[in-house]
Amino acid sequence: MSNTFGKIFKLTTFGESHGKAIGGIIDGCPANIELDFEEIQHQLDRRKPGQSKITTQRKESDTVEFLSGIFEGKTTGTPIAFQIVNENQKSRDYSHNKEVFRPSHADFTYQKKYGIRDYRGGGRSSARETANWVVAGAIAKQVIKKHFKSNIEVGAYTSSIGKIYLEKPYQAIDFSKVDDNIVRCPNDEVASKMIQLIEEIKKEGDTIGGKITCAIKNMPIGLGEPVFNKLHAQLGFAMLSINAVKGFEFGSGFCSAEMRGTEHNDLFNEDGTTKSNLSGGIQGGISNGMDIYFRVGFKPVATIMQKQETIDINHKKVTLQGKGRHDPCVVPRAVPIVEALTNLVLVDFLMMKK
Amino acid sequence: MSNTFGKIFKLTTFGESHGKAIGGIIDGCPANIELDFEEIQHQLDRRKPGQSKITTQRKESDTVEFLSGIFEGKTTGTPIAFQIVNENQKSRDYSHNKEVFRPSHADFTYQKKYGIRDYRGGGRSSARETANWVVAGAIAKQVIKKHFKSNIEVGAYTSSIGKIYLEKPYQAIDFSKVDDNIVRCPNDEVASKMIQLIEEIKKEGDTIGGKITCAIKNMPIGLGEPVFNKLHAQLGFAMLSINAVKGFEFGSGFCSAEMRGTEHNDLFNEDGTTKSNLSGGIQGGISNGMDIYFRVGFKPVATIMQKQETIDINHKKVTLQGKGRHDPCVVPRAVPIVEALTNLVLVDFLMMKK
Amino acid sequence: MSNTFGKIFKLTTFGESHGKAIGGIIDGCPANIELDFEEIQHQLDRRKPGQSKITTQRKESDTVEFLSGIFEGKTTGTPIAFQIVNENQKSRDYSHNKEVFRPSHADFTYQKKYGIRDYRGGGRSSARETANWVVAGAIAKQVIKKHFKSNIEVGAYTSSIGKIYLEKPYQAIDFSKVDDNIVRCPNDEVASKMIQLIEEIKKEGDTIGGKITCAIKNMPIGLGEPVFNKLHAQLGFAMLSINAVKGFEFGSGFCSAEMRGTEHNDLFNEDGTTKSNLSGGIQGGISNGMDIYFRVGFKPVATIMQKQETIDINHKKVTLQGKGRHDPCVVPRAVPIVEALTNLVLVDFLMMKK
Amino acid sequence: MSNTFGKIFKLTTFGESHGKAIGGIIDGCPANIELDFEEIQHQLDRRKPGQSKITTQRKESDTVEFLSGIFEGKTTGTPIAFQIVNENQKSRDYSHNKEVFRPSHADFTYQKKYGIRDYRGGGRSSARETANWVVAGAIAKQVIKKHFKSNIEVGAYTSSIGKIYLEKPYQAIDFSKVDDNIVRCPNDEVASKMIQLIEEIKKEGDTIGGKITCAIKNMPIGLGEPVFNKLHAQLGFAMLSINAVKGFEFGSGFCSAEMRGTEHNDLFNEDGTTKSNLSGGIQGGISNGMDIYFRVGFKPVATIMQKQETIDINHKKVTLQGKGRHDPCVVPRAVPIVEALTNLVLVDFLMMKK
Repeated sequence: MSNTFGKIFKLTTFGESHGKAIGGIIDGCPANIELDFEEIQHQLDRRKPGQSKITTQRKESDTVEFLSGIFEGKTTGTPIAFQIVNENQKSRDYSHNKEVFRPSHADFTYQKKYGIRDYRGGGRSSARETANWVVAGAIAKQVIKKHFKSNIEVGAYTSSIGKIYLEKPYQAIDFSKVDDNIVRCPNDEVASKMIQLIEEIKKEGDTIGGKITCAIKNMPIGLGEPVFNKLHAQLGFAMLSINAVKGFEFGSGFCSAEMRGTEHNDLFNEDGTTKSNLSGGIQGGISNGMDIYFRVGFKPVATIMQKQETIDINHKKVTLQGKGRHDPCVVPRAVPIVEALTNLVLVDFLMMKK
Repeated sequence: MSNTFGKIFKLTTFGESHGKAIGGIIDGCPANIELDFEEIQHQLDRRKPGQSKITTQRKESDTVEFLSGIFEGKTTGTPIAFQIVNENQKSRDYSHNKEVFRPSHADFTYQKKYGIRDYRGGGRSSARETANWVVAGAIAKQVIKKHFKSNIEVGAYTSSIGKIYLEKPYQAIDFSKVDDNIVRCPNDEVASKMIQLIEEIKKEGDTIGGKITCAIKNMPIGLGEPVFNKLHAQLGFAMLSINAVKGFEFGSGFCSAEMRGTEHNDLFNEDGTTKSNLSGGIQGGISNGMDIYFRVGFKPVATIMQKQETIDINHKKVTLQGKGRHDPCVVPRAVPIVEALTNLVLVDFLMMKK
Repeated sequence: MSNTFGKIFKLTTFGESHGKAIGGIIDGCPANIELDFEEIQHQLDRRKPGQSKITTQRKESDTVEFLSGIFEGKTTGTPIAFQIVNENQKSRDYSHNKEVFRPSHADFTYQKKYGIRDYRGGGRSSARETANWVVAGAIAKQVIKKHFKSNIEVGAYTSSIGKIYLEKPYQAIDFSKVDDNIVRCPNDEVASKMIQLIEEIKKEGDTIGGKITCAIKNMPIGLGEPVFNKLHAQLGFAMLSINAVKGFEFGSGFCSAEMRGTEHNDLFNEDGTTKSNLSGGIQGGISNGMDIYFRVGFKPVATIMQKQETIDINHKKVTLQGKGRHDPCVVPRAVPIVEALTNLVLVDFLMMKK
Repeated sequence: MSNTFGKIFKLTTFGESHGKAIGGIIDGCPANIELDFEEIQHQLDRRKPGQSKITTQRKESDTVEFLSGIFEGKTTGTPIAFQIVNENQKSRDYSHNKEVFRPSHADFTYQKKYGIRDYRGGGRSSARETANWVVAGAIAKQVIKKHFKSNIEVGAYTSSIGKIYLEKPYQAIDFSKVDDNIVRCPNDEVASKMIQLIEEIKKEGDTIGGKITCAIKNMPIGLGEPVFNKLHAQLGFAMLSINAVKGFEFGSGFCSAEMRGTEHNDLFNEDGTTKSNLSGGIQGGISNGMDIYFRVGFKPVATIMQKQETIDINHKKVTLQGKGRHDPCVVPRAVPIVEALTNLVLVDFLMMKK
């Protein structure tokens, strides 16, 4: 019931962080699209652990393997199944996790809901699942380009880490520079401060939150459905599905709550574009052809390398000492995830529109 | 495709603001629940136009009529159809609307998407649709109480209008006082300022945004599904479906993006509750039994009573003079809408859990 | 969960036979289609009770009223809501039904499943529900013609009543003659025998079964989806949803089970058509452009005008004396129902293909 | 859109006959069920090729491997992914298939619908897909027993091959004997004739159709939903999804079309059971606790070992000489498939009822 994303271009996923493999099935991909497999792997590499000093040092090659739906390099219109084998979890001893509920993790809620959990890791609540989304999003991106002949461009970047903000609107951003630094903030000066902050936080065994801004350019008019399938509601739903996300706002966002109609209304130009774009490219749930932009807020990672008091499955107090290799901040690795989900939302609405 | 809300307790709606009627079908309501019809109408009355000096002065009795699914006062398990006849739109002349795209309304996007629209009003993008949600939400609330024997309590209130904020956490709120004033802010002093602001704004022919905070108390553990049906993602999706909403955050929300893991983690008590609740009652998409709370940001209403330059359907410049009776601020009337959608989300997850 | 038909062109229905009204919402109808309302009512008239001496003499005008989704005679792309007011059930006394389980009716299963039922009639299990399908099917037919510019033709007819068979393949049928007689068998001689049989049966207070054959001509190639949405599987599902249907077969049907591959294979002509058409126009779940044809078997109506022993809700023996005005044979009135559902299946697949 | 079966207990499948693997994801399986993996493999073995002299001699071990959703032998409530590696298709040369449309196969319709197909085999239209269903059905069967504590028993058998019929009602069948012979007809004398017929047919390079009867015993009352999710409509839909099926009937089936109400009505006993069971255990779409039984008609396999005239993808005449190892009759191997789909339908309705 809960492991499928999308209505026509549908991704169904599986896999625990410490099982044999994770993966998914994409049902509804159009036929006859020549896939660029290097580009898919490239997106996965942008998300993978161990890619820089400010991410977890855990090593996973995260190599995607396709099992069906592709023939002689092209999609056939049948389900595309893929898997990513879990390499790094075979032999360790996880018995220390077995009985402990880690604070602000899903251990407690999973145990209470299902009465059983794969305690070797976060199970389905592990952010490892997002690798599946990146694979599907990378395919969605190619479908948008090659099947719909659309030049829609989705770009995301780190806009804040803790209290360090990139004080620029997305319009002033050169999206081609996002990957130029490891924190994925397209401004070297701000990025340096962010990286320095994350390194300090990491040294302290602590973690830090941050924000991602995403913009969608070259939007066609008419994507989105009224009432219960508004374009921004689906984008919000997608973003709120990412681990650690606590908030979503688009266009003028929460700021609009302090504004007046005379300030906020976007007046039309004669070509149907608008002079301002506080609406964020969507009116009545439907794209108006202007840029869409939104912000996503991430809480700090719950796994810290400091001692914490907690309880075990018998509700007895225990002391938890974080170990292992964890991200001091998820935001840099979440940039390709935000883009992937955005592409998945867009391809689905493109298919609905058709 | 886009007019159904929910997976098991499903509401499908219809109706334009200026057609014969609006209404809906609830499919999936359990049998044998004795409905309190006065309570349903009471919730509709909380939303209806003309209820106070700070709402639109348009008059609609908004009386709901049930057509099926109820026998001798009880639900039968079959679809519950209802309608609310539109009373106030018969005879007027709407030809002035026919050719104009109002700024920051959905006129433009609807016309471009469908090539046709019921120009007498906002059509499906009118907030009149939310009356349907209030009916269904009021039934959902009764199903939660009577079928699931749950004492879950959903309460929302106006937490800011423009820059006037109620500077209190929801824990300090007496929810029984929300309806004591017309702006639905449960603090008389702050409410007075809000009402005064809205009246001034109205006099100027302008409009103003605001925020609603909602809390859910007495939550059972285990509602919500991992991965793509997280409880907070569905709440966000629901709230972002309300007209004029630009942002959603739950628990610590966007503030968490500035925080550290050591500050943010909610440590457990031995009874499984947590000492703090920055998580907002949800971990890994699943309720942990603590209160859920979230905030929703509303932009100012797009219809203003001042002259605006705009374009017509031939993309020619025209001047638009707002007329009619419109809300200077939607927030007070949106309080029961936020509650209704919250109850709809909760009843659906209760049914899924079962 | 169970009151919606279709995936993209979706019909959600409501209504009990003895409630205020029955009706439905069509979600997913394309915009800008000029509807022929007389044709819709004409299809309803073909189904309505009291139309001839061999149907129930109950009188219902069965007038459909549209509440939304249509503006100035055209569809707007928003949900089309409609209702048919129940005229004939106000004042009667139904207390004799309250406690009795009629044999081979759904009284027993409804009572056991829901613990409550609208005992004034069959509730949702009444064939009155099929009037909703006829309305939606009549719209679907117009969408096929006007939106898809397709000349697909769906025609059904009574091919047997009891042991009286029309011994002709559908290819030899003049479909324009189906409504020339009241039993809807397009052969006057056979029709006379069928009518005579039904009249005799009726005099005896008994009922009789029969079969309907349906053919779809001018089919485009490529409708239907492999694996779990095969075109014939959806047609079968639709037909098996009609009250009293006990069997469905398409193309060579059950006869094929006695045949050899050398007899059964449909060899190709050079234009891609096939020399024979035992496949019934569908291969691998997908239409191949040849005619689709299928047969539907109806059991005799369960309500008979003779005394029957049965039990009441306390499982005590009682004697039931059928009264009221019931159909001695549903088949003639089911012809437009079979056509309506076929059109609903086809329009949905046309929308999926697009 | 078309590769998922079920509403709550959902199977999504993938895989072409000649790709790397086939498999699926089961979403919605309850947690904490100890799975009997040998029993799952046993059901696969009942379906696998090469199991006897009257099936295809192609060899596949058809070993199922589970990738997720199971921890320490128990289901965890998360998606269960599985795959069956294709062993037998690596090196052969399939270029002879590339351009030919085999008569009464899906080559033509796939090519026309998708513009591309995996010509090495039947792709998704290959009956190899049904191995996935058998895996999921075997799990469904265990969920019925272990999670729902139900003693529902599903049994299918070969009731005819060509014109050789087992002239006995299902009530006279000893279902424990179905696997005693290779044709799966639980009567040695009739089975011998069937086997002899299939061997003769095979020698001639021809194929033959047949029928399967399936019965469900110990049914609970109340499974099935009114209107558009009738229990028998879902069973029909499931059966019509099996390759080569041309017809479905339940209870009295097509015979009922010749009967009178006085003959057909099932009168009640005082315990709520019925004296006869022509209804086939379902009234108004809902199970009444009596046995459910139905028949499924299979056409002869389209692949014959004789020369056939056909066309190629350029619509030029060519002569096709069947080669390879194909089933002369699918019916014996289809018995476990019918059972598997029946278990999938039942588990889904059990979950809906809860």
